Amino acid sequence: MKVGATRYERVAALIEDQVQRGALRVGDRVPSVRSLSRHQRVSVGTVLEAYVRLEARGLLEARPRSGFYVRVPHVDRPPEPRFRARAAAPAPVGPAAVIVSVMEAAGNARVVPLGAACPSPELLPYRALNRFLRVAIARNPTHSSRYESSRGSEALRRQIARRALLSGCEIAPADVIVTCGAIEALQLCLRAVTRPGQLVALESPTYFGILQVLEALGLRAVEIPTHPRDGLDLGRLAAALRTHRIAACVAMPTLQNPLGAAMPLAAKRELVTLLARHGVPLIEDDVYGDLVYGATRPPAARSFDRKGLVLYCSSFSKTLGPGFRVGWVDAGRFTTEVDRLKFMSTVATASLPQVVIAHFLERGAYERHLRRLRAAFQAQTLRMSAAIARHFPAGTRISRPAGGFVLWVELPEGADAVALHRRALAESISISPGPIFSAAGRFQRMLRINCGHPWSPQIERAAATLGRLAG
Amino acid sequence: MKVGATRYERVAALIEDQVQRGALRVGDRVPSVRSLSRHQRVSVGTVLEAYVRLEARGLLEARPRSGFYVRVPHVDRPPEPRFRARAAAPAPVGPAAVIVSVMEAAGNARVVPLGAACPSPELLPYRALNRFLRVAIARNPTHSSRYESSRGSEALRRQIARRALLSGCEIAPADVIVTCGAIEALQLCLRAVTRPGQLVALESPTYFGILQVLEALGLRAVEIPTHPRDGLDLGRLAAALRTHRIAACVAMPTLQNPLGAAMPLAAKRELVTLLARHGVPLIEDDVYGDLVYGATRPPAARSFDRKGLVLYCSSFSKTLGPGFRVGWVDAGRFTTEVDRLKFMSTVATASLPQVVIAHFLERGAYERHLRRLRAAFQAQTLRMSAAIARHFPAGTRISRPAGGFVLWVELPEGADAVALHRRALAESISISPGPIFSAAGRFQRMLRINCGHPWSPQIERAAATLGRLAG
Repeated sequence: MKVGATRYERVAALIEDQVQRGALRVGDRVPSVRSLSRHQRVSVGTVLEAYVRLEARGLLEARPRSGFYVRVPHVDRPPEPRFRARAAAPAPVGPAAVIVSVMEAAGNARVVPLGAACPSPELLPYRALNRFLRVAIARNPTHSSRYESSRGSEALRRQIARRALLSGCEIAPADVIVTCGAIEALQLCLRAVTRPGQLVALESPTYFGILQVLEALGLRAVEIPTHPRDGLDLGRLAAALRTHRIAACVAMPTLQNPLGAAMPLAAKRELVTLLARHGVPLIEDDVYGDLVYGATRPPAARSFDRKGLVLYCSSFSKTLGPGFRVGWVDAGRFTTEVDRLKFMSTVATASLPQVVIAHFLERGAYERHLRRLRAAFQAQTLRMSAAIARHFPAGTRISRPAGGFVLWVELPEGADAVALHRRALAESISISPGPIFSAAGRFQRMLRINCGHPWSPQIERAAATLGRLAG
Repeated sequence: MKVGATRYERVAALIEDQVQRGALRVGDRVPSVRSLSRHQRVSVGTVLEAYVRLEARGLLEARPRSGFYVRVPHVDRPPEPRFRARAAAPAPVGPAAVIVSVMEAAGNARVVPLGAACPSPELLPYRALNRFLRVAIARNPTHSSRYESSRGSEALRRQIARRALLSGCEIAPADVIVTCGAIEALQLCLRAVTRPGQLVALESPTYFGILQVLEALGLRAVEIPTHPRDGLDLGRLAAALRTHRIAACVAMPTLQNPLGAAMPLAAKRELVTLLARHGVPLIEDDVYGDLVYGATRPPAARSFDRKGLVLYCSSFSKTLGPGFRVGWVDAGRFTTEVDRLKFMSTVATASLPQVVIAHFLERGAYERHLRRLRAAFQAQTLRMSAAIARHFPAGTRISRPAGGFVLWVELPEGADAVALHRRALAESISISPGPIFSAAGRFQRMLRINCGHPWSPQIERAAATLGRLAG
């Protein structure tokens, strides 16, 4: 257990240890919250937080009015990647030709798709969406004959505002701006709150798309070490805020890409408070938030915002289909400026995808779909973990994502992930090498593996090949 | 006739004069090209160019193997707006709250839509598009389940490349980048070829969306006087190129918004040569090019490019529906950079609209639709001209657009178009006042009137009200 663990982490480690040793097995009921609280002399709240986090990581499942049960088949998984807290130093963002090859591979059907973070089309509700689409165009045949408002379709904005309550956010439909995917939202937010040459605090590792947007806007990055489970290192962020003039912070507090980290609620609150104290806007990227394993999703950092300084972005790309290009943002006090920039960027978002998605959400089909999708992603991610444990060289470490469908893998000393990426591509397997997740080219021994596809012999073989190439 | 008119202009004026005086009436055959060439002692090519331009302006129509006939019902139209060639001085681009009110009015169904340049939904082929859409989703149900290539759907890019031949351009499907409307294309091009603070040469008046994009990118404008019929004043552009360091030129040589000007072919060639001599890229906005009146559309400026310096942009917003948000660009030698920026801007364009439009083009439905659309726009524009002639104060001047569906109106001395815009809005009529078409706030007596809607008693009343308010 890491030094300085909080009470609930110690409780969680206790349960996890019992599962590892086989004392608790799949289907077993774990001690009730009340009884464990008595035995461990900690509060009921502490035990509950521990159980909820174990649930989020897929180890336990909550059954209504019955308690928590061990869920995950016990596999002898390699340890998690190490957390290295390096000092934050500003860095210019360099171009990355590797990203181009990862994205190109995603469009090549003959390549095993472990690179880009894409769900399998098989898991997406395209049949239902097409049904709704036919109904929608029959009802409103002139759907695309007018300029849509730059903020987007009213029906969709109402649904987005309604769903935001699930992440603890009170958002008015009028404040939602529908964008061409979350990337447009992130870019508009950055343009609204920064000027070229300024510094932006980022998680490290971070989603490579953000690095590219920073580069295109002439911004510089301060990489803040980010823990594989707990997310942004707030101490390091505080130090960076004292040392540098930081114009904005971009982060994924609820489910981080590529780590799968989930910041504890208290840390989310502290993040918002810390940035507000420095007057620094937080651009919260929540595209994976709906994919946290377990029955309920945790509140977003935005739910703690009292100053309008959190610009809250998300999309339907990971849950309904990337080809719809529908994302959104509530930009808090920057809403007018983001709306103005949206008009100059693309005037409005295409109407048809908005019509379909609004219809799908209105019918309540989305929550049902999300439950199935989360379960599928969790199962696939566990199978990939097990396959990596079997096939990869000793010393490999694997993340324990709190949700979503990517794994962050640390190869043993001396490994070169970019070289592995090239060798894997030669065998028609795409992976995302670590250095593309850093402006400074860190993470040379790391890989991100996409687990968005149902398990198959082809994927099993690809995992074996990767293990051989990495060995 | 203006001083310095070229030979073909003198020939055109001769014919026009005969129509004005009633010597040639609707349905009359005009002299054959050969006979007029003999009588006027000019070349056959000169007469032909004059006739083609009169055809483009709707005065003549060509009947295959028969000759040219007078087409337009003769109305006693007010004269054209005056051309004022002012010196080009760099100007910062200021924000324009008036633009917001013009765009908001476009979304308000109770306002008579003479402001934003929008075709009426009634004139758009939405029934056929919906039919194609149903077929397309049945054939490819997972249309939106994957990330589309950042350059766009291959089927659509093939169709765009094929149609580019009609404007004299040889474009490879691989070089087409599909964008979220032409505005994204223009913005990506500007970002590819300029840096903040640099100067961009613009037509004056110019489409206000371009001014907003410049402002968002921190660019400055040099406004080049633009003739209501012949487009960009090349002498003034040459002078500006000698005086200032200009990073790019944005222009609409085939059909200018708001003037409806069409540059003669020789001028287009000279424009491309002049800019190439200075190494300045031309961003050619051709969104109205398919709407030039007459049987065939003139070649684009891009057709004269031999250096890859013309970035050629267009869209389907004015012809199939603005809500599809489908535009495109062939960025010449800047293609790689524009593609990179496109990925960082919106990753890719939404798939569904691309699927529908590709299908519509493949079936040959587009050219048939364009023929009907051009005729409707020409008729509506002429009716609006006649109504303005009836209702507006003496001294009003009206443009003679070569195509499209907007009129540029010059009010008599002392008029204030922004004040008229406000008074008109109070009576639920939207117009676009001149100053929004200039970074320097010129054109205070000018209006742009949208004629995209079929004539109706409501529009007739609106024209009368506008005339009263302007009086």
